[in-house]
Amino acid sequence: MFGSVLIENIGELLTCTGDGRVHDGGGAGSGGGIGLVRNAAVAIRNGRVVYAGPTAELPPGFGSDERIDAHGQLVTPGLVDPHTHLVFAGSRAGEFDLRNQRKSYLEIQQAGGGILATVTATRAASDQALHEGALARLDRFLAQGVTLVEAKTGYDLTIAGERRLLAALQAARESHVVDVSPTLLAHVPPPNGERARFVRAFCDELIPTTNADAVDVYCDEGAFSLAETRAILEAGKRHRKRLRVHAEQFTYTGAAELAAELGATSVEHLEQLSPEAPAKLAAAGVVCNLLPGAALTLKLPWPDAGRLYAAGCTVALGTDCNPGSSLSESLPLMMTLACTQMGLSAAQAWLGVTRAAALSVGRDDAGQLAPGARGDLVIWDADDHRQVPQHYGVPLARTVIVRGVVAYRRES
Amino acid sequence: MFGSVLIENIGELLTCTGDGRVHDGGGAGSGGGIGLVRNAAVAIRNGRVVYAGPTAELPPGFGSDERIDAHGQLVTPGLVDPHTHLVFAGSRAGEFDLRNQRKSYLEIQQAGGGILATVTATRAASDQALHEGALARLDRFLAQGVTLVEAKTGYDLTIAGERRLLAALQAARESHVVDVSPTLLAHVPPPNGERARFVRAFCDELIPTTNADAVDVYCDEGAFSLAETRAILEAGKRHRKRLRVHAEQFTYTGAAELAAELGATSVEHLEQLSPEAPAKLAAAGVVCNLLPGAALTLKLPWPDAGRLYAAGCTVALGTDCNPGSSLSESLPLMMTLACTQMGLSAAQAWLGVTRAAALSVGRDDAGQLAPGARGDLVIWDADDHRQVPQHYGVPLARTVIVRGVVAYRRES
Repeated sequence: MFGSVLIENIGELLTCTGDGRVHDGGGAGSGGGIGLVRNAAVAIRNGRVVYAGPTAELPPGFGSDERIDAHGQLVTPGLVDPHTHLVFAGSRAGEFDLRNQRKSYLEIQQAGGGILATVTATRAASDQALHEGALARLDRFLAQGVTLVEAKTGYDLTIAGERRLLAALQAARESHVVDVSPTLLAHVPPPNGERARFVRAFCDELIPTTNADAVDVYCDEGAFSLAETRAILEAGKRHRKRLRVHAEQFTYTGAAELAAELGATSVEHLEQLSPEAPAKLAAAGVVCNLLPGAALTLKLPWPDAGRLYAAGCTVALGTDCNPGSSLSESLPLMMTLACTQMGLSAAQAWLGVTRAAALSVGRDDAGQLAPGARGDLVIWDADDHRQVPQHYGVPLARTVIVRGVVAYRRES
Repeated sequence: MFGSVLIENIGELLTCTGDGRVHDGGGAGSGGGIGLVRNAAVAIRNGRVVYAGPTAELPPGFGSDERIDAHGQLVTPGLVDPHTHLVFAGSRAGEFDLRNQRKSYLEIQQAGGGILATVTATRAASDQALHEGALARLDRFLAQGVTLVEAKTGYDLTIAGERRLLAALQAARESHVVDVSPTLLAHVPPPNGERARFVRAFCDELIPTTNADAVDVYCDEGAFSLAETRAILEAGKRHRKRLRVHAEQFTYTGAAELAAELGATSVEHLEQLSPEAPAKLAAAGVVCNLLPGAALTLKLPWPDAGRLYAAGCTVALGTDCNPGSSLSESLPLMMTLACTQMGLSAAQAWLGVTRAAALSVGRDDAGQLAPGARGDLVIWDADDHRQVPQHYGVPLARTVIVRGVVAYRRES
């Protein structure tokens, strides 16, 4: 896989270096924005970017084993999805259909819906079936231009089972070209009613003995309380895990403020947000992972991105890929939803799926094209970055390069 | 291309025969709904379906030149898109970005946005460029499982130019496996102010001398008045064209009632609808083409499908594929939007992109799998029809068969 490759004849290049925020509109010459360069080239050597900028300034002595012609099209960093539930089994298509027809929660439960339906199917699935499901999802992510995903456990709800799901994430990472950053998720209390014991075991047995990158808690009515969330996050912090919180999706709990207080890497959802939270999140440098696909699927209010930007927050966009509330691997479609429904500019959306998302995942060398960064990039069927969110629902990633090697090429 | 093919080992088959409406929930054994059959087979001979039903009842003597294993997956008719603007040139991605950021109409106009931007680019494009653009869009439609599209002229606004666009549609039809039903669209009055003369020439010169399947008028503030719409539709009727009307998208004009009065084949959009219109449309048998992608892109209210169904209307779903208000070739995503945002059941959404859409296009042999129908079908990456609207934003059509021949096969 190592060697050198030159991607030339790039019509429009987004480098997405900087802090993941748009400072001046993100247009040409933008310092801290999307870093738009026209007539550009990218050189990759041994899996790392060695040059990304104007063709005219490409060092003359750069020899390459391979040249790839971008045909004047758009080139961006490989996309980063900061929030997925990658490993699960079973289908909840029936629940989807009932919910859309405004059937009651009771009817959906009686039809076997809800998170526990996925828990039952996931517990029953073999390691091999879980592995194949995760790889199929990573294939679909790759075909959408995604080269790094955060991925959570959370569909077993026993300590041994969550450990198995973490192993499945690690196996997927080792078997697939798309990189995976695994997170231990305390999703919902187990159905046997022993929630205090589960929280204790999660903190004392699971977190200390696993090598997940991060710990996440779903804090909401019907999930974990704010006190339980604090206990789990503090355990994560003691064991030097990154912290994440599913906060304020259905009800206001104060979890966003807790995330700021504990220095979490990210907060997720934020459909319900207190007036004070955005400034606190911005001051603490917590990346706000907005999940437009969950709002779409559940027909919830769209997260108020404008308030987060106004407060100076860093905003990332994720698919929330999961079997209940957002079954999608299309990060480009999340850009479309964020632009059309939440008012993001195309530049904000691009940073949300590249640099800001990489910061949310804690991989500083991802989501940007600068010397030293991963040689992960996408050549798009578009010659203007605004076309990718505009032209929605169809795959536009033409060629996806991971660590300097072509990992996917769409033929039609 | 002729011969016989047997698609076997179908886990779930939708035949979608009937009148395009769900009568009893559309489940197994449904007479007039989606016609769901488990453990099924489809036989095609000389491009036409000869059998579609339970494997157990397949006539024993059916010999086939080719057998295709559906591996237990879902098989449906090829999708039909009843509303597209297939032929155009240029990009309006800048306008998309400005509108999302709530820039004023004036700012968008100053930045070169609006339909007239497309008219300028389309007039400047060569025949070859228009042809290639249309073929690329048909490729993307095919990869989404679409085998028949209605397609409109409307981006030239001169009589000679509209004639050129119709020829481009006919050329696309002849060059591509996806079938095209061409419609002459009176889109907006030409910018030179000679609207009365344009309407007269459209009626007296264009409609009588072209072989479009249908005539359509965009009736709205800023487009054509109700009186102009009536004049154009009556000219279409005199020349035995099917009639369509873009009705009630931004303002209530009464165009839906006019469509019912004149016996139009379809009405489009219907975001603003009078209390009386649904019953009139149902009584007149006018198919209601709802376009969720336009509501998404422009952040308009979702069409009130529930009122149309309650009145007994036939409802179809289209992409509205066009460079301004809905740039997408994904009919499956329109199902997702219709289900999640407009409350359609999966069965209603399926009929909306198969049988009802075929009736809207006036191709009775399309959008269904019954003896004598076109041998157009899709094998999906799904084993339950509700998974296709649920699993959104990624291509799920695995194999697309047109007239009994494999026209598309997705490799990854």
